[in-house]
Amino acid sequence: MPASEIERMIQLLARLPGLGPRSARRAALALIVKRESLLRPLGEALLRAADAIRPCTICGNLDDRDPCGVCADPERETAVLCVVEEVGDLWAIERAGVYRGRYHVLGGTLSALDGRGPEQLNIARLLERAAVPEVSEVILALGATVDGQTTAHYIAERLEPLNVSITRLAQGLPVGGELDYLDDGTLSAAFRQRRPA
Amino acid sequence: MPASEIERMIQLLARLPGLGPRSARRAALALIVKRESLLRPLGEALLRAADAIRPCTICGNLDDRDPCGVCADPERETAVLCVVEEVGDLWAIERAGVYRGRYHVLGGTLSALDGRGPEQLNIARLLERAAVPEVSEVILALGATVDGQTTAHYIAERLEPLNVSITRLAQGLPVGGELDYLDDGTLSAAFRQRRPA
Ligand SMILES: [Zn+2]
Ligand SMILES: [Zn+2]
Repeated sequence: MPASEIERMIQLLARLPGLGPRSARRAALALIVKRESLLRPLGEALLRAADAIRPCTICGNLDDRDPCGVCADPERETAVLCVVEEVGDLWAIERAGVYRGRYHVLGGTLSALDGRGPEQLNIARLLERAAVPEVSEVILALGATVDGQTTAHYIAERLEPLNVSITRLAQGLPVGGELDYLDDGTLSAAFRQRRPA
Repeated sequence: MPASEIERMIQLLARLPGLGPRSARRAALALIVKRESLLRPLGEALLRAADAIRPCTICGNLDDRDPCGVCADPERETAVLCVVEEVGDLWAIERAGVYRGRYHVLGGTLSALDGRGPEQLNIARLLERAAVPEVSEVILALGATVDGQTTAHYIAERLEPLNVSITRLAQGLPVGGELDYLDDGTLSAAFRQRRPA
């Protein structure tokens, strides 16, 4: 039997997406074998992140400052808001390097199945932000899933009364595909060819 | 771009077996979302393990004490040594609950490809341990891979002059399969039906 410290580590690692009990054991072993080069640095990095990382109160991005780096960057366009489901989608778009505006992270999609309605998402704050006169475009960069498109449709309706053009990512989203899984090229194409919602 | 604390976390997570860059990002996000229930406890568990876990100087098992729990347990048979490649194999056998003797962890297999010879493995210490009169059997519980079987053959030859019976795990090892991937039932069967090497 592994010692209790190892057991505890395995149990926690097994709760990460992508790791089950078996791969968590392998990961734990790999960590112990690389005690000073991996185990300790990772432990320290996790605790530093736990202390430092907070959601941005403006856009919902995760960063070590609030407002986040994107919201605080004077070089980013303030006329465009890009609405994403999750912070991982924001990171994917940043990696693609195709967008220079601001973001708004919803924190998920509407979901009848999971009982997630508009009040569970960061939508009220989006409507406030989109109502500011300098905002001229809202890009709905939601996944091409049923829930993603339902959410896009709902938000487009709520934004309708405001004086903003509403666009969606166009070509390139594979049907049923989630944004975070796209390669940078596909994501760039989808961005360039966005069309009115 | 994620903040530097998140980037650092992602880079380190991506070095775990079973996680690539993409799944490391997902894992990092899942950790941040569960800051107090997962991120901080995992960070603390890793640092505790880094401080506490050491290889057993007798058998090579990893534990928070030395000698390890198996070596220190007076209830375990001292007449049988079970030789395994890695600590993960020892854990797998312990989970199967089929063996009550002691272990010896080699730290890998002989490998022409990776240039790993006998002196890179914990073999000298095994020969010392097997030479003690009370040891009557050495079980070579190595993987059914080419390297595993080469190693078993090499060790069997080195043990030949000693007064011990040398056995191998028999039925149940799928050809080319690694021990750590076996289910408990297969492993139990292989153990029960072990035969002279
Ligand atoms: Zn922000
Ligand atoms: Zn031991």
